[in-house]
Amino acid sequence: MVFEHSTAAQRVLFGSDKAGEFLTAELGRLGSTRPMIITGGSAERAAREITARLEPGLWWDEVVQHVPVELAEKARAAASEAKVDALVTVGGGSTIGLGKAVALTSGLPLIAVPTTYAGSEATDMWGLTENRTKTTGLDPKVLPVTVIYDAALSRSLPVGLSVASGLNGMAHCVDSLWAPKADPINRTFALEGARALTIALRGITADPDDLRAREMALYGCYLAALSFASAGSGMHHKIAHVLGGTFNLPHAQVHATVLPYVLAFNAPAVPEVSARLADALGADSGDATEALSSLYREIDAPRALADIGFTEDGIAEAVERSLKAIPASNPTTPTEENLTALLRAARNGDDPASVSVAAQQA
Amino acid sequence: MVFEHSTAAQRVLFGSDKAGEFLTAELGRLGSTRPMIITGGSAERAAREITARLEPGLWWDEVVQHVPVELAEKARAAASEAKVDALVTVGGGSTIGLGKAVALTSGLPLIAVPTTYAGSEATDMWGLTENRTKTTGLDPKVLPVTVIYDAALSRSLPVGLSVASGLNGMAHCVDSLWAPKADPINRTFALEGARALTIALRGITADPDDLRAREMALYGCYLAALSFASAGSGMHHKIAHVLGGTFNLPHAQVHATVLPYVLAFNAPAVPEVSARLADALGADSGDATEALSSLYREIDAPRALADIGFTEDGIAEAVERSLKAIPASNPTTPTEENLTALLRAARNGDDPASVSVAAQQA
Repeated sequence: MVFEHSTAAQRVLFGSDKAGEFLTAELGRLGSTRPMIITGGSAERAAREITARLEPGLWWDEVVQHVPVELAEKARAAASEAKVDALVTVGGGSTIGLGKAVALTSGLPLIAVPTTYAGSEATDMWGLTENRTKTTGLDPKVLPVTVIYDAALSRSLPVGLSVASGLNGMAHCVDSLWAPKADPINRTFALEGARALTIALRGITADPDDLRAREMALYGCYLAALSFASAGSGMHHKIAHVLGGTFNLPHAQVHATVLPYVLAFNAPAVPEVSARLADALGADSGDATEALSSLYREIDAPRALADIGFTEDGIAEAVERSLKAIPASNPTTPTEENLTALLRAARNGDDPASVSVAAQQA
Repeated sequence: MVFEHSTAAQRVLFGSDKAGEFLTAELGRLGSTRPMIITGGSAERAAREITARLEPGLWWDEVVQHVPVELAEKARAAASEAKVDALVTVGGGSTIGLGKAVALTSGLPLIAVPTTYAGSEATDMWGLTENRTKTTGLDPKVLPVTVIYDAALSRSLPVGLSVASGLNGMAHCVDSLWAPKADPINRTFALEGARALTIALRGITADPDDLRAREMALYGCYLAALSFASAGSGMHHKIAHVLGGTFNLPHAQVHATVLPYVLAFNAPAVPEVSARLADALGADSGDATEALSSLYREIDAPRALADIGFTEDGIAEAVERSLKAIPASNPTTPTEENLTALLRAARNGDDPASVSVAAQQA
């Protein structure tokens, strides 16, 4: 057991219908009297409600995906002119992204009130887009000092989107188990996140108004983001990146579809952690691959890359590119042969267990 | 699900026979060229070894239990005079305690290299003793910025002491599950800590030279300290404090003996978390009380308060004092009747399961 684990300081306040109360208290604790409220799109109504008791120093409601650098500059100048003393984002990944861009240059404390399951609030990664090129970086200044989770704010997220986001979180958890910087502490978060997301996905699918399930989704995605930020990107994310980038397949469906096959590929090589994952996925069998497949059937998750336009003749290139990208830390050594078997099975929507057999034979 | 959880920033470096290498790298990262090395007693040899490649600004080898204020003042003056630029403790709780006392007034960064399982390295609590009175406080300045865990340094800890320390860690984990500030995040640490300590206690008992078991003990006690510092003191620690304070019974044995009875008392009221604890304790049954009893038999842990001098006529006073101290958050409501049953069973070393029955009837 050799590892190096850095824990970042952050406060989490969690409670349904409590965002307004929590936010007022947190701004008081920071001594802020002129907060900049950053929101946009469908989150704006929620932002109005939870800031009703506040007098913002600046109200900002222009948010654009991937944070264009011109927008960041405009927001920074406005923050400076309005002499704001704290930043509050109410919204999803793009909104938090803009808050981080302002925090990066101003050093102002950032409070995030996420309304989706994006997970950006748990990381110190920022991103800016200039001339269609995205630059990212890590800086402790952009990590929100406080995150306020209020499941009531995500209640209106459609079931389809909730399931896709939840499965994205699940992919973060599962891939963290064998990512390059995996350690016992981030593995603990990953397993707890998988446990929470299993409950969340089952609950939201069965009843979209199940607030308890929405809470588990927020909580699970927070842990997913923590574990992924700490452990780094593993085999699953490398393959998903190739399929999304080179073949322009839709991000969410690629992630959801590929995950069971990567799990089947690696599980036999890490029996102990797989047994714990199976347990987190709610199975008594100790078989994580079967447990995830069972969850997929129950929530009717996407199962075949063919359904989103991935064709047989793309497999060879996807294998070649993936082979170069998969980290050396991966439990099962990837080969042209076993990766081809994996991608063929994922394309066809075959039983993931078949990939375990192929991986072990290789 | 409503909670507030604060995570403190800390780096953990973990690896057997790596303390020297890690320490040199960490001092480099902090830009320290004149560290103060604080050690004492049996840890001094280890301190010499792991600092062999360094030129300390000051070597300090006087350490006293409970950190007398005069000693702290002497160490602070010496640190100031030697113009040290970082603090390094190599040792157990008393050594870390002195390091914290110097950090408290100097603001210097503290690196802890624990050689026991005390857990002080994971908390921002300091303590000083003046005129036989101990003052404690919380201050972020005293939280070690980095903890270096090297199981090879604790290899010489006798089995009896290792088991007692491990059970003390186990008590931190179990009691955290229902402590006043228990939340899903510190519960995750507590369960992972219990899992690691179960492996550690079994392994060290079977083979004192089992380095893997020593690693799990260090790792488990770190998580135990994290969860306890976050969740606060629950029913178990309140009763143990009464028995230790009012009846002057030995600390370690009291903790070890009382724990299974408090677990049996509360488990039926929190079936979900108990089932998870049973799993962490290595049992398939879902019965945490039986799982802990089974572990106790295996490692030959202390089982009866009568064996350490607690007599029948002390029960009434212990019940009265405990009733006042047990937090309102406790899952099973304590009464004179059910607490009397608990303490009588713990005195006699009866099967803890009998306490579950008494608690449920009350």
